[in-house]
Amino acid sequence: MIKVGIVGGTGYTGVELLRLLLRHPQVELSVITSRGEAGRRLDDLFPNLRGSTSLCFTDPDQSDLTACDVVFFATPHNVAMQSVPGLIERGVRVVDLSADYRLRDVAVWEQWYGEPHTSPELCASAIYGLPERNRNAIASAVLVACPGCYPTSVQLGFMPLLQAGVIDASQLIASSASGVSGAGRQAKVANLLTEAGESFKAYGVAGHRHLPEIVQGLSAMTDGAVGLTFVPHLVPMSRGIHSTLFARLTDTSADLQDLFEACYRDEPFVDVLPAGQSPETRNVRGANTCQLAVCVPQGGDTVVITAVIDNLVKGAAGQAVQAMNLMFGCDETTGLSGIALLP
Amino acid sequence: MIKVGIVGGTGYTGVELLRLLLRHPQVELSVITSRGEAGRRLDDLFPNLRGSTSLCFTDPDQSDLTACDVVFFATPHNVAMQSVPGLIERGVRVVDLSADYRLRDVAVWEQWYGEPHTSPELCASAIYGLPERNRNAIASAVLVACPGCYPTSVQLGFMPLLQAGVIDASQLIASSASGVSGAGRQAKVANLLTEAGESFKAYGVAGHRHLPEIVQGLSAMTDGAVGLTFVPHLVPMSRGIHSTLFARLTDTSADLQDLFEACYRDEPFVDVLPAGQSPETRNVRGANTCQLAVCVPQGGDTVVITAVIDNLVKGAAGQAVQAMNLMFGCDETTGLSGIALLP
Amino acid sequence: MIKVGIVGGTGYTGVELLRLLLRHPQVELSVITSRGEAGRRLDDLFPNLRGSTSLCFTDPDQSDLTACDVVFFATPHNVAMQSVPGLIERGVRVVDLSADYRLRDVAVWEQWYGEPHTSPELCASAIYGLPERNRNAIASAVLVACPGCYPTSVQLGFMPLLQAGVIDASQLIASSASGVSGAGRQAKVANLLTEAGESFKAYGVAGHRHLPEIVQGLSAMTDGAVGLTFVPHLVPMSRGIHSTLFARLTDTSADLQDLFEACYRDEPFVDVLPAGQSPETRNVRGANTCQLAVCVPQGGDTVVITAVIDNLVKGAAGQAVQAMNLMFGCDETTGLSGIALLP
Amino acid sequence: MIKVGIVGGTGYTGVELLRLLLRHPQVELSVITSRGEAGRRLDDLFPNLRGSTSLCFTDPDQSDLTACDVVFFATPHNVAMQSVPGLIERGVRVVDLSADYRLRDVAVWEQWYGEPHTSPELCASAIYGLPERNRNAIASAVLVACPGCYPTSVQLGFMPLLQAGVIDASQLIASSASGVSGAGRQAKVANLLTEAGESFKAYGVAGHRHLPEIVQGLSAMTDGAVGLTFVPHLVPMSRGIHSTLFARLTDTSADLQDLFEACYRDEPFVDVLPAGQSPETRNVRGANTCQLAVCVPQGGDTVVITAVIDNLVKGAAGQAVQAMNLMFGCDETTGLSGIALLP
Repeated sequence: MIKVGIVGGTGYTGVELLRLLLRHPQVELSVITSRGEAGRRLDDLFPNLRGSTSLCFTDPDQSDLTACDVVFFATPHNVAMQSVPGLIERGVRVVDLSADYRLRDVAVWEQWYGEPHTSPELCASAIYGLPERNRNAIASAVLVACPGCYPTSVQLGFMPLLQAGVIDASQLIASSASGVSGAGRQAKVANLLTEAGESFKAYGVAGHRHLPEIVQGLSAMTDGAVGLTFVPHLVPMSRGIHSTLFARLTDTSADLQDLFEACYRDEPFVDVLPAGQSPETRNVRGANTCQLAVCVPQGGDTVVITAVIDNLVKGAAGQAVQAMNLMFGCDETTGLSGIALLP
Repeated sequence: MIKVGIVGGTGYTGVELLRLLLRHPQVELSVITSRGEAGRRLDDLFPNLRGSTSLCFTDPDQSDLTACDVVFFATPHNVAMQSVPGLIERGVRVVDLSADYRLRDVAVWEQWYGEPHTSPELCASAIYGLPERNRNAIASAVLVACPGCYPTSVQLGFMPLLQAGVIDASQLIASSASGVSGAGRQAKVANLLTEAGESFKAYGVAGHRHLPEIVQGLSAMTDGAVGLTFVPHLVPMSRGIHSTLFARLTDTSADLQDLFEACYRDEPFVDVLPAGQSPETRNVRGANTCQLAVCVPQGGDTVVITAVIDNLVKGAAGQAVQAMNLMFGCDETTGLSGIALLP
Repeated sequence: MIKVGIVGGTGYTGVELLRLLLRHPQVELSVITSRGEAGRRLDDLFPNLRGSTSLCFTDPDQSDLTACDVVFFATPHNVAMQSVPGLIERGVRVVDLSADYRLRDVAVWEQWYGEPHTSPELCASAIYGLPERNRNAIASAVLVACPGCYPTSVQLGFMPLLQAGVIDASQLIASSASGVSGAGRQAKVANLLTEAGESFKAYGVAGHRHLPEIVQGLSAMTDGAVGLTFVPHLVPMSRGIHSTLFARLTDTSADLQDLFEACYRDEPFVDVLPAGQSPETRNVRGANTCQLAVCVPQGGDTVVITAVIDNLVKGAAGQAVQAMNLMFGCDETTGLSGIALLP
Repeated sequence: MIKVGIVGGTGYTGVELLRLLLRHPQVELSVITSRGEAGRRLDDLFPNLRGSTSLCFTDPDQSDLTACDVVFFATPHNVAMQSVPGLIERGVRVVDLSADYRLRDVAVWEQWYGEPHTSPELCASAIYGLPERNRNAIASAVLVACPGCYPTSVQLGFMPLLQAGVIDASQLIASSASGVSGAGRQAKVANLLTEAGESFKAYGVAGHRHLPEIVQGLSAMTDGAVGLTFVPHLVPMSRGIHSTLFARLTDTSADLQDLFEACYRDEPFVDVLPAGQSPETRNVRGANTCQLAVCVPQGGDTVVITAVIDNLVKGAAGQAVQAMNLMFGCDETTGLSGIALLP
């Protein structure tokens, strides 16, 4: 059994991680910390967990995470980097779901997050936890930086085209839309049902923190310089991300359907839809799947890719468990085979 | 392995049954019939099933259900009763999710459903599939009539009180509310997002088909005559039923919290909340759990019970699988241990 | 022109009051105060007001409300009672949308609101602003206490029956359901779209502050003692209240449809539906109407009334404007004739 | 008073037209036809109209529309073109909300709508009813073809840039999202709350009928050839359209905020937001406003415009009334000054 600790875990990423780990046949959940909820039963905060665990949150200062085989950080940015170096020193492997180690360039991180990075030395060695790109590196990683939710959908959507070199990487456009759980379980007026319900808006048009992460990821897939315009939107629903990607084809002769199917043929969690279909976020609600479709409208020179994930699963907790499975030699799909809930 | 057939299965009860059975470790899904969708892959109709099955719907006239150990009917009423007698004759056990065999009194059935019952002889021997009432009978049943969604929540809510004889059974009130999936996957204007969204209404106030079923069930729990006013409502959400039950206490000295906890202590799928809490339908989304709370406001003589289920799981497909587990000697919770999806 | 001031106005009741008053042909909006938003344009906080006003919020300490003909309080409880006595002394009339003057019995108020009332002398003289009960008194009132949202729907639903003396007032049940805007525009986790969306729950089962207000109102309609069990629920939508009311008939011979139609024949904002129909909250979204239906299921002795309002209009801002119209001799429907937005 | 007739009117565009026209001070609604609902009261079909009209739908074959000053067609495509020529011959002016006369090129129309056009001679003389482009022509028009909902938002968004010649018209991208009312009030499984709720998807990626209409409109604003990739999406809400537009700047020196503000300074129904803000569809729910924002992320060479309208108002019924106001010499805003409903 893999002894698992969780830091944080009072947010939506946390409860989703609990949902998955509490049913994972090779995991023993040892400890979960929360400063604000220390002493409270998990299932008191999250009543969907009643009957599945009797654990309580513990104070991080009084919790021994060093006895764990792996620790997940389901925290806001700027928390993991305080503790990760110490854990790694003591031989604990880390899966960080926050943004702390996603960017290799510390200066870029500091620019977008507006504060100094306190463990910059680990940024270069952290493995970016997108299995479809880095499967082997993840397997042997000490520290995995899980991709953000938008970046997962955008990178998986552009990857086959960039790797094949059939699009102009300098003029990419990503118009993405997320359910409200992407904003976290925090008391903000903007995310009330009465504010976010029955409405649709773009936000962060001038610049969103996931932009440099996506650009870093796409750049690794191509020789050319990547130019990306990324506009996220808020959808009146709880879960799901949908990315609509636009690129100019430099080679209009390629069979893009074939290209996508070949690229993802062996991937357990990427599903290329038959030509002519479009993915819906509900197809993957609660599942670790990324569903994709590719289309060239009117046979022109612009390709449109649509990609959906559950932002809390393939965009966060599920992908983190997938990384853990790789790190500990489990079958990659262990604990992740639940079918999406429809309707 | 239990060889399973499904008749119907193109509705929401059907896709939920598929979600559960395709991951049930002791089930082999052999055949699923649909007149309208014969020849079509299941995962073409329900893209959440992609990667989990390559089965197609088959024409009922060309399908051999007699090779199955058990056949589920996920059909509108008036379908199962055409085929069930023949299947039972050939030794196939049946779990009927429709209303055909729920009422023991054929005359009452014919009054509420407005047509003659074609296999009335089976109505008396069919076992009403509420495990919390009929566990042993279900285990040996040939034909199980699965309870309706509203009836499950109302019966589990009143049961401890009626069995203990502490309420006046002649003046019961059930104010229930259901998500729109309760209306099925049928093209009706009233269930469009633009009609049912952002609105709340009562319906069937003058009389709903679940009324006689509930009265039949409650009557079996008490010696007195049952008088019930039942008002269902439509909630702008997909899944979930919430029943708010009112009864007059004939004995105000009983500790009702104790009564409920004692009644359901050994039940794997009934969860009595601690005093002071109220259930939310999302706590059980996708799970086979009924969550209950009991309260006597201002210490008066009216007791209020609140009960939630997922109408498609404990109110339909999950309860059907629970019955099958009992019928075939599996652990009752097999294939039903998934944690509710929150948020 | 009526010179109007508003205290508060940064919540949903406030923005709804602004929507109505900015289009009221006999109103001049002079001042609107907010401590937290002083100096900010109204239409910066509420972009739906762009083009309709260039007013800014002002600091209450630097605002002269005494030049107004009438001041609306759209504040949490415990605010109006600090300022109302002073305003009234200087001849300003007041329409209070908060709970401060709704209860005539100060001790009851202090018990439910948990603090001392600072202007108890006005509680007895304040006029309860339900025009269908108190039209004449409102017209000459100095201080109007606007009814709460639940109480409006419950009182209008029971009123014809209690006034006619055909139900047992000692055993009334109100099962009500509200959209999330009833909880106000405050940053609370429980009201996030991710918490309140796609779910339904009861709350305040043990006791809700609207209970004593409803009981006070119903008691004035009957000679007998009123016994009420009131259970509110939260619906995943923004606007709307639906109340399902149950009572035992003491006289089953009365034609209840006639009774309701006769009672409300001359009411501009109460609409009794034809027999057999049920109201939906969306029928009155944005309108000042209360829509009602009455039914006696299966011809028994329990009557079921269903009533809907828009909690922000007939349940708050609209009813307040209706009161103002009466107070200042305008036609009662002035500024309130907008048709509900459907879908 | 303007004598108005409506053909169709049982859909969402119809009920919205009724909501606006029944409160329009210069309109007398004479007749509204519907083959399917002939004889039924409007307010029986649409209970939000109760108290506002006692009209019934009449059979089109027995209705005299020639006595009207203007007839609105709120019908599916292929209906108006059967009757419009006859009405015009008899001196009746027409506002067509359907697609029949939107395209000047009859061959293109026939290609996208898949049937012959029966009154092609009127296609060239019909006036495209976008007041911000064609105000004067609308005023004197005999036949106005109201723009589609998506086309309104996309054209108003690109117009200032195309007219100023600062973007490359050959590489335009429009990623739009619509509430479900855009799909009409028709019984289709795909638009059930249980299908369209809590989900987000693109549709019509390969080609949507609004594409040629948008291209025609944009082409008139520029000398260059227009190349547009248009991807519509479905949002789980009832009302609202949001368009996110991308274009490559050919002149990065222009002050785009100034450009937009100057372009729309005198427009009563186009609202350019201050720099840094983004529109939300709810800001214009029920209002005839198009709210716009312009941004150049990271000061690059890609401009992003976001535009919102209520698809049923500025995208349909409101814009139609705006056209009628122009045609009959009313103030352009008459009957259209209602403030958006928020929340």
